[in-house]
Amino acid sequence: MKRIITVTPNPAIDLSYHVAGITPGASHRIGTPLSRAGGKGLNVARVAHQLGHPVLALAPTGGAVGAEFAAEFRNSGVPHRLIPVAAETRRSIALVDTVGGETSIFNEEGSPLRPAEWQALAAAVVEALDGHGAGVLVGSGSLPPGAPADFYPALVRLAHDAGIPAVVDTSGPAIIAAARAGADLLKPNNHELLDATRESSLESAARHLIALGAKTVLVSAGAEGMLAFHHATPGGYWSARLPEPLSGNPTGAGDAAVAAAAVALANGMTDITDIPGILRRATAWSAAAVLMPAAGEISPLHTDLESQLILSWKETP
Amino acid sequence: MKRIITVTPNPAIDLSYHVAGITPGASHRIGTPLSRAGGKGLNVARVAHQLGHPVLALAPTGGAVGAEFAAEFRNSGVPHRLIPVAAETRRSIALVDTVGGETSIFNEEGSPLRPAEWQALAAAVVEALDGHGAGVLVGSGSLPPGAPADFYPALVRLAHDAGIPAVVDTSGPAIIAAARAGADLLKPNNHELLDATRESSLESAARHLIALGAKTVLVSAGAEGMLAFHHATPGGYWSARLPEPLSGNPTGAGDAAVAAAAVALANGMTDITDIPGILRRATAWSAAAVLMPAAGEISPLHTDLESQLILSWKETP
Repeated sequence: MKRIITVTPNPAIDLSYHVAGITPGASHRIGTPLSRAGGKGLNVARVAHQLGHPVLALAPTGGAVGAEFAAEFRNSGVPHRLIPVAAETRRSIALVDTVGGETSIFNEEGSPLRPAEWQALAAAVVEALDGHGAGVLVGSGSLPPGAPADFYPALVRLAHDAGIPAVVDTSGPAIIAAARAGADLLKPNNHELLDATRESSLESAARHLIALGAKTVLVSAGAEGMLAFHHATPGGYWSARLPEPLSGNPTGAGDAAVAAAAVALANGMTDITDIPGILRRATAWSAAAVLMPAAGEISPLHTDLESQLILSWKETP
Repeated sequence: MKRIITVTPNPAIDLSYHVAGITPGASHRIGTPLSRAGGKGLNVARVAHQLGHPVLALAPTGGAVGAEFAAEFRNSGVPHRLIPVAAETRRSIALVDTVGGETSIFNEEGSPLRPAEWQALAAAVVEALDGHGAGVLVGSGSLPPGAPADFYPALVRLAHDAGIPAVVDTSGPAIIAAARAGADLLKPNNHELLDATRESSLESAARHLIALGAKTVLVSAGAEGMLAFHHATPGGYWSARLPEPLSGNPTGAGDAAVAAAAVALANGMTDITDIPGILRRATAWSAAAVLMPAAGEISPLHTDLESQLILSWKETP
């Protein structure tokens, strides 16, 4: 089996707190948080690793929060390499209101890396792609402030130079840049896709990314399931969904979909006839992630869920 | 000048975030926080140190958050000794809504220490009290879960064995225990005082603590100023307040009051005739803390504020 290399340029320590009722302006007593090394590429690596696929997760980390991140991630057993940087690793805080039922999230945007640190991260990617073990390169998540505009395009080129496919899951201008660079698979959610392309329908938005250079666009649309657009099938797209939407924790569901796609691509499923199978697996893993309390894990029910999926081909009118 | 020894059994890293509008249930993007080694005894030491008084702050710290805490506190220049423990130091998170103007606070309750760690903390106190440098012992703040019920009483005894006064600023059963142990000065706020004693008036509540064994009770009452009750004056109490309440950041105002009282006690002001002066200084430093953005600092306006105070003696009817 070929290895899935994930790159997370802006990782975070995810702190989840249960709060028994949140009153704005008040002081609240809370327990010890669930503290987890987070970031979308780490979640992708965790899910693929959980299902027995070889992975390597790369991320820059720094400061005392970075040390906490490193200690937590080491416990996961997921193979990884952390690139030391001067800037403090960011935090993401989730406040779960156990009375109101809502979860409020506060994501630090992260701190700039130095030019030499971006080079060290790129060098770690080159080293990971060296030899014949790597099967796919996945770049996931936001970029810290001041990141080079061509970071994700450069990842796509490094993958292609190594003869392997590149998957990018990000938002805003970075997803446009990754499409232009010819990413093999992009995985925006419906909101990110419409925001980045300024199109008014998911179909025109996905076609927009393909026109720029992307090969496949997988769109996660929450309870509506998932859509797959491919550059060689301009006449329509595949759609997969469960008969009934699941309730649970949607954080990390998109990352589980990326993990499914990455496993498929790493194992040579790069033909157009593979797309329905990739979509099925990505939709099932994503749904199985919703059933788990933490991001980066999927429920063993994923095979049952896959068998229940409703897959359809939608012709463009 | 004699040294002020402060003990903070449950310190925290204080993380303050500015959020441009908080929507419950939504995801928010936030900048890098102001990160500060916090805890009430640290604030007391910071204020006394800022005004040139010799201090030593003692606190247990552990884990990656403890390392972050230690690095930040080292930068303050405040003399301190941190006692290493296995449990992760807790966090306190303040979300300042820059649109709504409210600040919501989320305090982790902290993690239990091991029996040997409590002994190491007590041994550090004994060592700090050894010799002739120590002028007062201050115990401040909450206790972590599972703390020995006699932690604050034991501090009071250690201080008295060393021939110096003991100040305790805590809440709940711990303040009752400190009163019983004969603490020289307790500094609850009005809410803590009524909660701990289950009395219905501040005067009966303060007298309750004095009847248990406390010598002086300083009660902070927000915009109403501060009250001082003394065991030798059962017929009334002193009250001090500004002509107009100040607006600002009340976090750490009580700690500044404790710092003022500790400086006075460390310098031998333990006579009943010293009480009005201690009350004046404590009220002025507390008000001067409200003018500063962070806890543990007071405005240089404290002398001006002290000159404006309205001090009065209230006879018990």
